[in-house]
Amino acid sequence: VFEGKTTGTPIALLVRNKDANSKAYDHLKNVYRPSHADYTFDEKFGHRNWQGGGRSSARETIGRVAAGAIAKKILKKLEKIEILSYVSSIHTLSASVNTNTLTLKKIDANIVRCPDKKVAESMIKEIEAARKEGESLGGVVSCVIKSVPAGLGEPVFDKLKADLAKAMMSIPATMGFQIGAGFSGATLKGSEHNDAFYMDKGMVRTRTNHAGGTLGGISSGENITFDVAFKPTATIFKEQETITTSKKATTLAAKGRHDPCVLPRAVPIVDAMSAIVLVDHYLRNQARKGLFT
Amino acid sequence: VFEGKTTGTPIALLVRNKDANSKAYDHLKNVYRPSHADYTFDEKFGHRNWQGGGRSSARETIGRVAAGAIAKKILKKLEKIEILSYVSSIHTLSASVNTNTLTLKKIDANIVRCPDKKVAESMIKEIEAARKEGESLGGVVSCVIKSVPAGLGEPVFDKLKADLAKAMMSIPATMGFQIGAGFSGATLKGSEHNDAFYMDKGMVRTRTNHAGGTLGGISSGENITFDVAFKPTATIFKEQETITTSKKATTLAAKGRHDPCVLPRAVPIVDAMSAIVLVDHYLRNQARKGLFT
Amino acid sequence: VFEGKTTGTPIALLVRNKDANSKAYDHLKNVYRPSHADYTFDEKFGHRNWQGGGRSSARETIGRVAAGAIAKKILKKLEKIEILSYVSSIHTLSASVNTNTLTLKKIDANIVRCPDKKVAESMIKEIEAARKEGESLGGVVSCVIKSVPAGLGEPVFDKLKADLAKAMMSIPATMGFQIGAGFSGATLKGSEHNDAFYMDKGMVRTRTNHAGGTLGGISSGENITFDVAFKPTATIFKEQETITTSKKATTLAAKGRHDPCVLPRAVPIVDAMSAIVLVDHYLRNQARKGLFT
Amino acid sequence: VFEGKTTGTPIALLVRNKDANSKAYDHLKNVYRPSHADYTFDEKFGHRNWQGGGRSSARETIGRVAAGAIAKKILKKLEKIEILSYVSSIHTLSASVNTNTLTLKKIDANIVRCPDKKVAESMIKEIEAARKEGESLGGVVSCVIKSVPAGLGEPVFDKLKADLAKAMMSIPATMGFQIGAGFSGATLKGSEHNDAFYMDKGMVRTRTNHAGGTLGGISSGENITFDVAFKPTATIFKEQETITTSKKATTLAAKGRHDPCVLPRAVPIVDAMSAIVLVDHYLRNQARKGLFT
Repeated sequence: VFEGKTTGTPIALLVRNKDANSKAYDHLKNVYRPSHADYTFDEKFGHRNWQGGGRSSARETIGRVAAGAIAKKILKKLEKIEILSYVSSIHTLSASVNTNTLTLKKIDANIVRCPDKKVAESMIKEIEAARKEGESLGGVVSCVIKSVPAGLGEPVFDKLKADLAKAMMSIPATMGFQIGAGFSGATLKGSEHNDAFYMDKGMVRTRTNHAGGTLGGISSGENITFDVAFKPTATIFKEQETITTSKKATTLAAKGRHDPCVLPRAVPIVDAMSAIVLVDHYLRNQARKGLFT
Repeated sequence: VFEGKTTGTPIALLVRNKDANSKAYDHLKNVYRPSHADYTFDEKFGHRNWQGGGRSSARETIGRVAAGAIAKKILKKLEKIEILSYVSSIHTLSASVNTNTLTLKKIDANIVRCPDKKVAESMIKEIEAARKEGESLGGVVSCVIKSVPAGLGEPVFDKLKADLAKAMMSIPATMGFQIGAGFSGATLKGSEHNDAFYMDKGMVRTRTNHAGGTLGGISSGENITFDVAFKPTATIFKEQETITTSKKATTLAAKGRHDPCVLPRAVPIVDAMSAIVLVDHYLRNQARKGLFT
Repeated sequence: VFEGKTTGTPIALLVRNKDANSKAYDHLKNVYRPSHADYTFDEKFGHRNWQGGGRSSARETIGRVAAGAIAKKILKKLEKIEILSYVSSIHTLSASVNTNTLTLKKIDANIVRCPDKKVAESMIKEIEAARKEGESLGGVVSCVIKSVPAGLGEPVFDKLKADLAKAMMSIPATMGFQIGAGFSGATLKGSEHNDAFYMDKGMVRTRTNHAGGTLGGISSGENITFDVAFKPTATIFKEQETITTSKKATTLAAKGRHDPCVLPRAVPIVDAMSAIVLVDHYLRNQARKGLFT
Repeated sequence: VFEGKTTGTPIALLVRNKDANSKAYDHLKNVYRPSHADYTFDEKFGHRNWQGGGRSSARETIGRVAAGAIAKKILKKLEKIEILSYVSSIHTLSASVNTNTLTLKKIDANIVRCPDKKVAESMIKEIEAARKEGESLGGVVSCVIKSVPAGLGEPVFDKLKADLAKAMMSIPATMGFQIGAGFSGATLKGSEHNDAFYMDKGMVRTRTNHAGGTLGGISSGENITFDVAFKPTATIFKEQETITTSKKATTLAAKGRHDPCVLPRAVPIVDAMSAIVLVDHYLRNQARKGLFT
């Protein structure tokens, strides 16, 4: 519940937390929610915003999405780079998605932002069931970035995959990042995992893309593909063991308005952070190009 | 094959590539190895170091390990923070490890640095078999960091998990990072994944540690646990389809001295990067502490 | 002319340019003011804000002053560090100021913020005369920072004097920075310039303070003293030779509301930037302290 | 006294302090030299390198000069940017230099690197006299940078003049920085200081250059001109009051090999730091160019 408004010339973005003065969060004032930032913020700063979470609230991501919108415009104009993020799994349901024919329209065709229509329907049902029983669900957002020029990313520390990993793992509730074949690729042999080079109409291409579009941390020109794991929402309505802010044992069953599954709403955030990382690396590469040629 | 030597007072670290002037890499001069940084470095910089890889060679990690050694000393002295990295899987073999009783001695007890003795033996056999057939194997390095004080990590962008992710994904050959329950945690429900708080001798603890030691991106005081996926070594002796530097189709079967599995040697690098990230966050937290109390 | 307002909890600072929609700047739309940022912003960005200057307007310094207010509170609480900036000269009039007995009250006793009462009166008259003839005046803001602990500043690049210099030279209209004896110290011999050490009640002190409070770029415990030169305001009402935005020769006599001398208003900006630099270095030093002892 | 040597491919630069194991510095072991970094390094770090100064020694500038040499090559190749630094004053002797006809040859024509031949001779004599009496002399290095394209420098904090100021004030022994008319420009009226625009063969030029080549912190295309004040060398042979490292009063007359005037040797350092700042800003500007056109 926020109100985003640009004031006059689009310089400032005001985000108001409408819940801040309501009583919606009163029952959380003296208790730490399990698996939530409540405890660590209090421990680190000596205070916390129990009326919505403050800087640990996903409300902060509106700034990322706003910046990402500008970044995406630049990427589209200059290089026709296209970023497509989507929900690839929720709980134990996994979608089957052909990234070659994937479009934004297919992603936005349903409210879970999963382009596999049939699985999307099951996901919606499962989220509804979770809502009813006061539960929450985790899942995976996947992303494919098309038409990325070769050469983005820097040797050693600022590899493109490293900056994408940091960007994704800075999003609230994320638990994992993998590029290309990722963890499952670690179970392959070299001859199975290696992506053979070949020439296609004068372009260097690879037969497979287990690498996920970067080699040595630098974009190869193939699609960049990665997955981001999100944990189930920490705030649930089921009763849980926990402690009070004065360090006494208690139990908590959260009340009010809480989202049983953040995955669909995480899609534009993954999109935005991808765009921001790519524009940064595009600018770095642009700075260097032409210097030594 | 490098020679690391400190000169006089330990200020500089000289690393010489003994292969640079040998003929060991001659057959790679005009060809791009599949899934290697050869092509992207050439595309980006207009040249590459085919005699060992230059900045895309894992030789560069000696600097990380040297810095990590200092970082680990600081962490140990001040907070008794202990970092234990180990090989948890190679190819399809997975170790069973109790992190509570894990020691450095158990990790270093065998050459694959896997503390599960039985699985370690199988791993050694599988690596030997891979070497014989000119193949390579991927795997996972896991890490547990003990006695981390609560409060390390910053809100929003510089979350501890985000900086760990970037650090790990900057290591050559990495394909994924997950913290705590990671990708498998994404298949759980909230009531299963949440870590219940309880008091233990005046200390705030959690019954489980699916979070992997951070909440809201800030360390909670529980063990930090994460996994890093490594792809199988790109350079193999089996013949593969690829292209020459003049963009003609060719095949390549690498020769010479190449490691069929980097996992055991990746362990000290994961260790070092963990220590560097932790010291950085420790210093940031130290800077803030005392300012507002 | 701005309206600064904090919204609810003090998170955002809204600054509105009341002139933006007036006709006050209309005569500047198609002409570059001499010695103003008009031309370089247009050349660099392909557009400029002729209705007040945009990012080249001193309006942006309100953010610095707001941040500086917080920085000063921290400095005062922890170390009793006191920052006193004042106008030391305007045009050819120079004040005589004893920094040992200087107080904020003496600085704020008159509208030019010059603690030398007599010279202040002459300055006020000269500014009034300049206003009448459509002229503008430059001058110098000096700053003394008291009770700075020894140890702030880093070797090599981030010397305290270097960061102060950058901070000051980032303020609009600044043309020079000098610390301690500065440019006039360059005309002294070593035996005249060197500050002799002596012990005073167990404290290390220096007989003179030509160094201006830092040695080797690190604070020594003596007062930090520096001067910042400001050019006369670029916008004047006298007719000047210049060019139009379509690169034709023209003349310009500015109209409306323009300040003939920015010096008194520069004082809080110098104050604020000093506080920001000091807090940054205080935090860096705090991070390091205790690590190796 | 250092030995700079590149090892094989020019990756590392080894600098050895030949004095480190001699007895040349023995008499400085237990005493703080007035106006030297001895005391502040000891106070901050708990130890110092009394055998030459360690990181407070001007030996560290060899790294700056090496980096500057590469930066200068880039600047020359791309934009024909030319950097000319020279000694403009020593003690009370000031040179008269026409920057329009200035060449590197004129600067290097004498050992004090002052292009005013007659004043240079007097400077040499004065330095010799200072050496004989165990004294030291300060002075000013000036710099003119020609053929800088308009557009280098960023609004608000990273103004070109701000980054130049920081770079110069990070050089050992610097006490002041001024751009264009600098401190003396602060005594002018607006109509005197403003640089009138005019068109010259299709180029935007200014009749005067009191601004020193930047407007609003961004290069205008005019020559960049600035001055850097250096204090007299702290280490002198005359007896001075000081304290021992155990905080007792003592006197010190330094012995051995010390330079009575660092100005001529500061010239290549000012050159190098100018080149480094310019290349950084050139890259930043290059990154942005073309994005929005």
